[in-house]
Amino acid sequence: MTAATTRFSYEGLFSERSEDSPINSVAHAEYDFAVAYPAPETSPMDGLIGALQTAMDSRGDEVARNMAYYPQPAGSPELREYAAWKLEYDRGFKVGIDDILITAGSGEAIGLAIQALTNPGDTAITEHFVYSGTLNQLQRFGNTVYGSETDDDGLVPEALDELISKLSAKGKKPKMIYTIAEHQNPMGPTLPLDRRGAILEIAHRHGVPIVEDECYVDLRFDGEVQPAFRTLDDSGIVIHVASFSKLLAPGLRMGYFTAAPEVLRRAMSCKIGSGPNQFASYAIEGFLRNSLDEHRERFNPLLKQKCDAMDESLSDNFTDVGATWSKPQGGCYTWLTMPEGTDITSPRDEIFAEGVGYNGGVGFAPNGDGQNCARLCFAFETPEKCYDGIEKLAKLFKKRGLM
Amino acid sequence: MTAATTRFSYEGLFSERSEDSPINSVAHAEYDFAVAYPAPETSPMDGLIGALQTAMDSRGDEVARNMAYYPQPAGSPELREYAAWKLEYDRGFKVGIDDILITAGSGEAIGLAIQALTNPGDTAITEHFVYSGTLNQLQRFGNTVYGSETDDDGLVPEALDELISKLSAKGKKPKMIYTIAEHQNPMGPTLPLDRRGAILEIAHRHGVPIVEDECYVDLRFDGEVQPAFRTLDDSGIVIHVASFSKLLAPGLRMGYFTAAPEVLRRAMSCKIGSGPNQFASYAIEGFLRNSLDEHRERFNPLLKQKCDAMDESLSDNFTDVGATWSKPQGGCYTWLTMPEGTDITSPRDEIFAEGVGYNGGVGFAPNGDGQNCARLCFAFETPEKCYDGIEKLAKLFKKRGLM
Repeated sequence: MTAATTRFSYEGLFSERSEDSPINSVAHAEYDFAVAYPAPETSPMDGLIGALQTAMDSRGDEVARNMAYYPQPAGSPELREYAAWKLEYDRGFKVGIDDILITAGSGEAIGLAIQALTNPGDTAITEHFVYSGTLNQLQRFGNTVYGSETDDDGLVPEALDELISKLSAKGKKPKMIYTIAEHQNPMGPTLPLDRRGAILEIAHRHGVPIVEDECYVDLRFDGEVQPAFRTLDDSGIVIHVASFSKLLAPGLRMGYFTAAPEVLRRAMSCKIGSGPNQFASYAIEGFLRNSLDEHRERFNPLLKQKCDAMDESLSDNFTDVGATWSKPQGGCYTWLTMPEGTDITSPRDEIFAEGVGYNGGVGFAPNGDGQNCARLCFAFETPEKCYDGIEKLAKLFKKRGLM
Repeated sequence: MTAATTRFSYEGLFSERSEDSPINSVAHAEYDFAVAYPAPETSPMDGLIGALQTAMDSRGDEVARNMAYYPQPAGSPELREYAAWKLEYDRGFKVGIDDILITAGSGEAIGLAIQALTNPGDTAITEHFVYSGTLNQLQRFGNTVYGSETDDDGLVPEALDELISKLSAKGKKPKMIYTIAEHQNPMGPTLPLDRRGAILEIAHRHGVPIVEDECYVDLRFDGEVQPAFRTLDDSGIVIHVASFSKLLAPGLRMGYFTAAPEVLRRAMSCKIGSGPNQFASYAIEGFLRNSLDEHRERFNPLLKQKCDAMDESLSDNFTDVGATWSKPQGGCYTWLTMPEGTDITSPRDEIFAEGVGYNGGVGFAPNGDGQNCARLCFAFETPEKCYDGIEKLAKLFKKRGLM
């Protein structure tokens, strides 16, 4: 047998569910506001490695044995227990270890909830601008997504009620309301308490579950955290998603969610492969058990400095041109809105090549608008670079007659 | 807003793709031959932690920065490069970093290949008894699976040819041939070189891709490794899957595969969520780059002791009853075949409760036979427990009149 000389042809062999999609490496601009990452200088790598070492030193046999097993599909018992503890400590509601599923980042949790609840042809509701990862997953699993009206405080309950009624009248009652109520991605607001109550009432009246994504809840540097939908309502209508990625390091790929037992069972049936990474689970659980508050107290003031620096530079460079931007109390993003008719989405790649990365608004819009908007991540760069990069962005916009 | 008092009903809300499936914890018997794990005492946890620490000490800023990014969807560049190097070093074929996708264990790689190639209603071919994880994934994505005849050396080429012809004549040409040619799971054999050549010729003639799963290739303690299908054929017809799980620790959840670029692109489009765990990637790449051979030289002699102990106990306890069992040259499993008509699959749970875990043959059979067979994993327990557990198994079989 010698090596074949002609290529094997896959013509006609690929599935309908697959697409010919490029395998991109992620590139980074000099001023990288296009990312969705916290600051690398806050990633507690030494603490995580130390936690692994401590686990080995104190109970090495048990750790080695658990590493030799395939991970429990639902996640490591230690991390599920810790997640349940954290939900009660931070969010004031009580769930048991069996009510928690650990996932490869919150993205997997959201994907499982979508798969458990929706069939191709179904509809789902999100904020008018929504985390593009969720938008993509909803669409990929065959849903038509409707963005519901938002203002500076987030979802407007009356508009949500009306949208659900309109869709239901057409036989298209949505299968879920997906929302990031704390430091919304991409727009930034925290939904006020009274709106949360109103939205719960609407959801119950129409019989539509709420998927609440709290992946930014640990990243608060101003204002007051609001009670989670899940804190306000334990009927099972709320699917509560959270993450360790933003708090510690996205490279750990570790999130979790809690929901009614019947939802968790359905979600598990959609899971591919075995459980989450046991190695990273030991590191996370060991580190956070001793250092959760300490880490947040170190992390969030730095995030505030960055947010303030970007805000100052936006004030200095974008005030006179009719632009507005959000002033978040936490999270990673500011949402920039240029005057109606300005297209800052199309030149995104050129401007990236000239040194400033951002995400054009269109990628976050179920209805495809947002050409005049951009998501700016302040969490990754230093405060100095946050200031300078926005100054440079203004120059690059001006050069193109965009302001 | 107060907590709701009635449960929210999900009646009519769940998707057709989901099922109400229990979230099981994995239980372990006193003598655990039902697992699919290597020995916990060989899991190089200290080496993995040391590799992370070395990476931090030597290039901490870069590591922290990469941990702050979301992982590249295709996997960390360092680990892809290492995987390409290892394939050339161990298997003698050359691929570039762009030809490698890192996955959450080899299970994800197999799942992606299945999704890229098959539509519901398609057919696929495996060995007569096949790794149950692959069987489950093939069926879950809607395939009808046909096990092709095997003997003590593995797949019989003539029977494979005939099966493909028969299926093709019915308009059901298989979309893939899945095989574990080194230390097959569950039966144990290594496929001889001449059969590999014959099977490649058959695959080309019919135009059917081969998915070659080499997750046990590092676990050889006897005999000679055979050239991989991919070593023999670089036409693109072979999709080559490998894993770090068996070599290091399943808890790391790290596998990879290489295939024709168009297959990789299709597979990537089926991937959910972002890339593999960067934290574990650093640990694996750092550890193996310095210790691959040393680790295998420590690991495999121990595996041989265990295999020999189990074989000795099978000889001492199962010889007179007409049972046969395989004598693998590596991997994790011995395949026990009791006389035709003996059902050792049904009492599996009872015997587990009495202290000996094994996998009944039926779970590995596309056609549902194998009631008289069991997969016995020798890799996990000590040599002593391998001997004693088989002795106990014989007692428990005798107690039930099964021998």
